[in-house]
Amino acid sequence: MPPRAVLPAGVSSTSFARALGELRKVVGPAYVLADREELAPYRKLMIPAAEEEHEPSGAVLAASLEHVQGVLAVCNKYKIPLWPISTGRNLGYGAAAPATRGQLILDLKRMDRILAVDSVLCTALVEPGVTYQQLHDHLQERSIALWLDFPGDGPLVGPIGNTLERGTGATPYGDHFAHACGMEIVLADGRVLRTGMGSLPGSASWQVFKYGYGPYLDGLFTQSNFGVVTKLGLWLMPAPAAYRTLLVRYWDDQGLAAAVETARTLRLSGTIRNPCRLSNAALMLTAASRRAELYQGSGAVPNNVIFAAARQHGIAPWNLTFTLYGTSEQIAPSLDIVTRAFEASGGEVVSDYHDGSQSNELSLSSFSLLDWVGGGGLAWLAPVSPARGVDAIRQRDIARAVLGMYGMDYLAAPTVYGRDLHHLTAILFDHDDLQALQRAKDCFRDLAAAFTANGYGLVRVGIDFMDQAARSYGETRRDVNRALKRALDPNGILAPGKSGIHR
Amino acid sequence: MPPRAVLPAGVSSTSFARALGELRKVVGPAYVLADREELAPYRKLMIPAAEEEHEPSGAVLAASLEHVQGVLAVCNKYKIPLWPISTGRNLGYGAAAPATRGQLILDLKRMDRILAVDSVLCTALVEPGVTYQQLHDHLQERSIALWLDFPGDGPLVGPIGNTLERGTGATPYGDHFAHACGMEIVLADGRVLRTGMGSLPGSASWQVFKYGYGPYLDGLFTQSNFGVVTKLGLWLMPAPAAYRTLLVRYWDDQGLAAAVETARTLRLSGTIRNPCRLSNAALMLTAASRRAELYQGSGAVPNNVIFAAARQHGIAPWNLTFTLYGTSEQIAPSLDIVTRAFEASGGEVVSDYHDGSQSNELSLSSFSLLDWVGGGGLAWLAPVSPARGVDAIRQRDIARAVLGMYGMDYLAAPTVYGRDLHHLTAILFDHDDLQALQRAKDCFRDLAAAFTANGYGLVRVGIDFMDQAARSYGETRRDVNRALKRALDPNGILAPGKSGIHR
Repeated sequence: MPPRAVLPAGVSSTSFARALGELRKVVGPAYVLADREELAPYRKLMIPAAEEEHEPSGAVLAASLEHVQGVLAVCNKYKIPLWPISTGRNLGYGAAAPATRGQLILDLKRMDRILAVDSVLCTALVEPGVTYQQLHDHLQERSIALWLDFPGDGPLVGPIGNTLERGTGATPYGDHFAHACGMEIVLADGRVLRTGMGSLPGSASWQVFKYGYGPYLDGLFTQSNFGVVTKLGLWLMPAPAAYRTLLVRYWDDQGLAAAVETARTLRLSGTIRNPCRLSNAALMLTAASRRAELYQGSGAVPNNVIFAAARQHGIAPWNLTFTLYGTSEQIAPSLDIVTRAFEASGGEVVSDYHDGSQSNELSLSSFSLLDWVGGGGLAWLAPVSPARGVDAIRQRDIARAVLGMYGMDYLAAPTVYGRDLHHLTAILFDHDDLQALQRAKDCFRDLAAAFTANGYGLVRVGIDFMDQAARSYGETRRDVNRALKRALDPNGILAPGKSGIHR
Repeated sequence: MPPRAVLPAGVSSTSFARALGELRKVVGPAYVLADREELAPYRKLMIPAAEEEHEPSGAVLAASLEHVQGVLAVCNKYKIPLWPISTGRNLGYGAAAPATRGQLILDLKRMDRILAVDSVLCTALVEPGVTYQQLHDHLQERSIALWLDFPGDGPLVGPIGNTLERGTGATPYGDHFAHACGMEIVLADGRVLRTGMGSLPGSASWQVFKYGYGPYLDGLFTQSNFGVVTKLGLWLMPAPAAYRTLLVRYWDDQGLAAAVETARTLRLSGTIRNPCRLSNAALMLTAASRRAELYQGSGAVPNNVIFAAARQHGIAPWNLTFTLYGTSEQIAPSLDIVTRAFEASGGEVVSDYHDGSQSNELSLSSFSLLDWVGGGGLAWLAPVSPARGVDAIRQRDIARAVLGMYGMDYLAAPTVYGRDLHHLTAILFDHDDLQALQRAKDCFRDLAAAFTANGYGLVRVGIDFMDQAARSYGETRRDVNRALKRALDPNGILAPGKSGIHR
């Protein structure tokens, strides 16, 4: 007998066995996984958390809306908590694993149909298992001149999972939720809700107008556990006639402030249409070096070591990138404006840079980050502040101080989306080293606390930190989430603990 | 004794008198109106509906969040339905009057503070009573170079009311809800919810980042009755260095199709950043003529009469306007692109047009519409479709046919927001003429039904048509709204019937 997986809390082994039997009838026996070994892919975490605290009780692989309804019926009957995933690669936030031990994974990767692409209206309709790579290939094969916007882990992940986590990318469509239009949701009781224009008979507007009539509900189903999203409409960017990606180097570590101020001004004037990402020297260096090649001492790699090594690769303490899109005639005057503005702010402008993430090129290059330390451990923090120089500097100093206490390096990509700055910060560690994992966990907790105490809220965190993040936003917010949860999922079977929401 | 107003359904006159007494203690005796005469401003409708079906039982004028909480406590105690309004000028949709007879108006116009304007981050925070005119004056007096986006009835109305109704305007910030950031909401039980980053202690990000952590809730409080919004964050547009407003005339009535196709393409490429509004000849003529001057026959004014009169004023069958924003160097190449594209589509391009609504000039000029027929009756319909020529033509033909059956003229401004076209259509009539009012009502009903039957859903309707509109989006959608309503307002005291949502 293979080792049994854990049981869902409060469910007897007899009940669970019976439930698994019924689930096999719903999706077919091959698509219910309950042996501990088979579940290994769902346990693997990159974040500094203990696998046993997030161990699933099993996995059910649904291939259709009807399967999802059938699974929900069984889970309601036996009160089995169900953790829906799409591609299951929420990397740096918990991958496929559930927020609490014993949840049954509802794996939707078999639902991988691209249901529609409209090259005139520049929209698509996809299922949860569709990856960015798959959609990219689909467009390329048909010579459809539409661009995708994808997160750093691009090819591996998919639009539904990333959008529901409110992920971001690097083009003008970088706010993924803002560029999603229309959802199909299976509610906990099996009813199917289509949002926006999707429930109007005969409407061709599901993917063109978000709000529909009455309350606009789509936001409810992001970063939450109120339903299972089975279809999502996407807005795609028409390929521009031309584009020009720029790099602005700030050779002074304090240049961060001026960079943020300038980027915000140009974003809000509409001259720059995509997010302005500022990568620090250490983060850029991960593409060229490993930590151990530069430094064998204790503590974080000293700034002067980082800066010296970086300079050899043409990397400055701060490196800002963005792209101008349009016809070459439209790009020319904007290029003048941004060049003058960034030079006036103390930056060195390189006006023919390449960053494929800003121009529809999928790649795995961002994963070089993981080689810096080795061992596969990664957790992201992204505190939000106003896009002001003073805030960026303060966040930098907080991050350096707290990371330094744990001997960890500051690798960051503060990004100006518009009025907001997200100080994306990586915590890297050897996941196989228990001491390193514990240190990373403590460091994450302290860094999160330090950001929060300074009013820089966390807006996306891993499965082990959801309750803490939710608590920081106060009790009324949590009470409202709980009231909505009870209204939409009275048995509380969907993803308990997700975003700190319990029944 | 002055005539008594109506009673709320199910509330005895003794109970109501007691409730009014308690409300007077909350807001002060001068701010509780219960005599029928005093309530006249809240009864006045422009839409074709009977005033007696929407007659309020009274009005309470709250001046603070604490007042709102106090009023809610009394209304919960006595189960009195409460209809919140901000400036009460939801013109063409029901003004200040409640969806059902006997609701008590919660008038928030005394809450009229501009709480913050940030000229660096280009944001504001306002209360419900603030009007666009007030905010405009505030900015002008302080020489703050930020622009407002406002709806057609501009100066009279305010950002909170218009945004919560999901109103639109004419600049790149024309989708008002998309450019709102952060709400303060008093829930039915008096608790205060701040959305987004607003509940994080010490956060300066409430007006810069919308989503916060966990489900994004703001959409819930638009076109609904789930809470009383007492503060709203706004994104304001930095005044551009220059701008150029264009008019494109299509002298062929069928030019509508090519105009829509061209506008969509240029909107999606980012060359045009604001909505492209297509006004038809009759709508434009209302600024220069009255119906009776042109035509005394029966039925709708014939097309050839409209077109001939329009031509005398330089007005074409279709007249598209939009604006290019940026520096003059940025505008130049875009002007070339749009001129070539619209000329190729059959349009005549006038490249120095004036439309103040696209460039921060508030005016009452759009009210000339009401003089076309006279008598003050107006109802708007705005069916949504994909922004495609074929849909625009079909909507035009539906509108002409149905309006024509009732002897009414087709006055329309189909507007391309992006992927979506909203075929804004006016029904004008003499509100004092009972026969005309009944005809307008029948016409509205038939036109709404015809649009809906063709898959063109209505996304904003007046207080007399909310149940029908909600029904067209199906039962699951309504059930979900009802479940959310019960979760957030268990006594159902807030605006019953709003958007077709009842407890």
